Amino acid sequence: MKITGTFNKSEQFFVVTGENVFIELEQFLNDFCILPVRIFILVDENTRHHCLPILLSHSVILKNAEIIEIPSGEKNKSIETAVQLWNALMERRADRHALLINLGGGVISDLGGFISSTFQRGIPYINIPTTLMAQVDAAIGGKTGLNFGDIKNQVGTFYNPKAVFIHSGFLKTLSKDHIANGFAEVIKYALIEDAILWNKLEKLLLHESILKIPSNNLLWEKLVDRSIKIKYDIIVNDFHEENIRKLLNFGHTFGHALEAMSMRNFNPGLHHGHAVAMGIIFESYLSFKQTGLANEDLNSIVSLILLNYEYFPIQDSGSEQLIEFMSHDKKNKDHNIYFTLLQRPGKAIIDQRCDSELIQDALEYYHQLR
Amino acid sequence: MKITGTFNKSEQFFVVTGENVFIELEQFLNDFCILPVRIFILVDENTRHHCLPILLSHSVILKNAEIIEIPSGEKNKSIETAVQLWNALMERRADRHALLINLGGGVISDLGGFISSTFQRGIPYINIPTTLMAQVDAAIGGKTGLNFGDIKNQVGTFYNPKAVFIHSGFLKTLSKDHIANGFAEVIKYALIEDAILWNKLEKLLLHESILKIPSNNLLWEKLVDRSIKIKYDIIVNDFHEENIRKLLNFGHTFGHALEAMSMRNFNPGLHHGHAVAMGIIFESYLSFKQTGLANEDLNSIVSLILLNYEYFPIQDSGSEQLIEFMSHDKKNKDHNIYFTLLQRPGKAIIDQRCDSELIQDALEYYHQLR
Repeated sequence: MKITGTFNKSEQFFVVTGENVFIELEQFLNDFCILPVRIFILVDENTRHHCLPILLSHSVILKNAEIIEIPSGEKNKSIETAVQLWNALMERRADRHALLINLGGGVISDLGGFISSTFQRGIPYINIPTTLMAQVDAAIGGKTGLNFGDIKNQVGTFYNPKAVFIHSGFLKTLSKDHIANGFAEVIKYALIEDAILWNKLEKLLLHESILKIPSNNLLWEKLVDRSIKIKYDIIVNDFHEENIRKLLNFGHTFGHALEAMSMRNFNPGLHHGHAVAMGIIFESYLSFKQTGLANEDLNSIVSLILLNYEYFPIQDSGSEQLIEFMSHDKKNKDHNIYFTLLQRPGKAIIDQRCDSELIQDALEYYHQLR
Repeated sequence: MKITGTFNKSEQFFVVTGENVFIELEQFLNDFCILPVRIFILVDENTRHHCLPILLSHSVILKNAEIIEIPSGEKNKSIETAVQLWNALMERRADRHALLINLGGGVISDLGGFISSTFQRGIPYINIPTTLMAQVDAAIGGKTGLNFGDIKNQVGTFYNPKAVFIHSGFLKTLSKDHIANGFAEVIKYALIEDAILWNKLEKLLLHESILKIPSNNLLWEKLVDRSIKIKYDIIVNDFHEENIRKLLNFGHTFGHALEAMSMRNFNPGLHHGHAVAMGIIFESYLSFKQTGLANEDLNSIVSLILLNYEYFPIQDSGSEQLIEFMSHDKKNKDHNIYFTLLQRPGKAIIDQRCDSELIQDALEYYHQLR
């Protein structure tokens, strides 16, 4: 698949998936490097080991690229690592014409994108996502960011990569946890935008864990392609998340809060996708109470999630912390907490203010699932 | 004067100068705050004392604004201060709909703009520049930034303010040094784009220091308006400085390097405008040698600068440091140093690579002016 289009009324973008991805990448680099260009590849210790050799074996141009490594893990999506990266580029005398290639999962593309958007007021970058999470979500759409003061993505920019190249073979390097992690976003896409996909997922998964599906199955490629298509169709119309892009935040108000809370209390904390899966439960309940989601749909969503993801219990004392974290959500206004909720599977609605009684009620509901 | 237009193919902007500036500001705030909006005003100790009372006396809406203060001075245009500001907004629970008002000179608008562009991936901001430097240059055009590892504006973004309001009365609060500082940019505008203005400046200033002109003179308003107009005419066509915006960098390759070097060796270091004035001398000599600037024009430029700005000597050992700093200039490519140079007063040319012999020659020329 190759999607091309225009963001933000002027910026070109394109995404390539499928078997020609490395040929398209080499062609892109060839066009990009008409004049000599310094190329930097950002990796972590995992992608350096598992993915970089694959990438380099498919490219002549990248043979001379310089490698910059940061430690893996959400904890490193920090201003301290950003400072190290700005320094690394400066010491290596990167100029404005340098190209940064982010080879990794969401931490690499979020942080690498932020560095690209701010180094010398912006250098070009491309994403080569290596996790399912990054392939279906983090690497596309130009949201960059880092965590700040415990709050997820509190500092960041909207800055689109020149291109995204998705090699499904990288999924084979992933643990089952990582696959489940990314799959939460696929469930989200189905629920907010694609009732037919949701029905398929229900049939496919209600009695069997997604982890049983081998990761080299063609199904994965189809799910990745469909997810990307849904995301692009939304964000080409609202790059800066002023309205419909908020649809993509379903499950994320609670999910981000749970993730942040778990990172404060444990190391390494919950995976983003695992937290989003719990967020889909929580926000589906809100949808049931506030925006007309049918009880049977709620139950179906909750069963499917709990079959595939371990329930993450919160202590009673955690409720207050969760509300505190949700109060920092970027969709909020006037000190109220706003959600994206479902009206039915395949149809979501943005800018839903939920009052504190309803949020307490949903916390009770979540508690009793334990 | 009121200039309105569109940047970057979609973003609206406007700039207001003249006697109605506070009425226009109140109208803007009134339109902007249809829904309740948190307003933060960023100041330093000087603008809090001298400018904030004037601003507040002209606005009802700003009575409830929250004040955030940072210490004045270029040294504070740092990542450390940025971290403090992100924290300050987070602790005060600013959301994406908050408005930041930057009331101050270039440090305030550069840093406040950077914070606006990165807090929660971007909040709106307006600039109310209070120095001549900020009114004619720093506050307009959406270049934000901070200094990093001794290098000027090494980290930053292109992020345009919603509006800029320029009150010439603030100039009365400035020291003569500050006026001279901003005036260097006025000289630059004349030299790159407006031969008629240059002729006027020559007549006005060749035998008399600009500091003799009282700061409440109508002339100042005219010079500010003309400077802003020149800048906007350039940047509406090249917001991201891919080509003609580099015209505005005349005097700045050497100027930024000299400023950075002086900041490394002294506290507080050279004023930006003073460094740019020295940069205009240096780069006019390069123009004489490389792009056909007439000898008599070079002499006229140099006399006018030296009449108004104290010559800043560099030690022999400083030459190497200066070249090192220039090698980090954002206009560079392929490890070569690029300049914007003059063909004649009123006509500049971008992307001029100067070889190291010529740069040495220009350093010699600069030395012997002492």
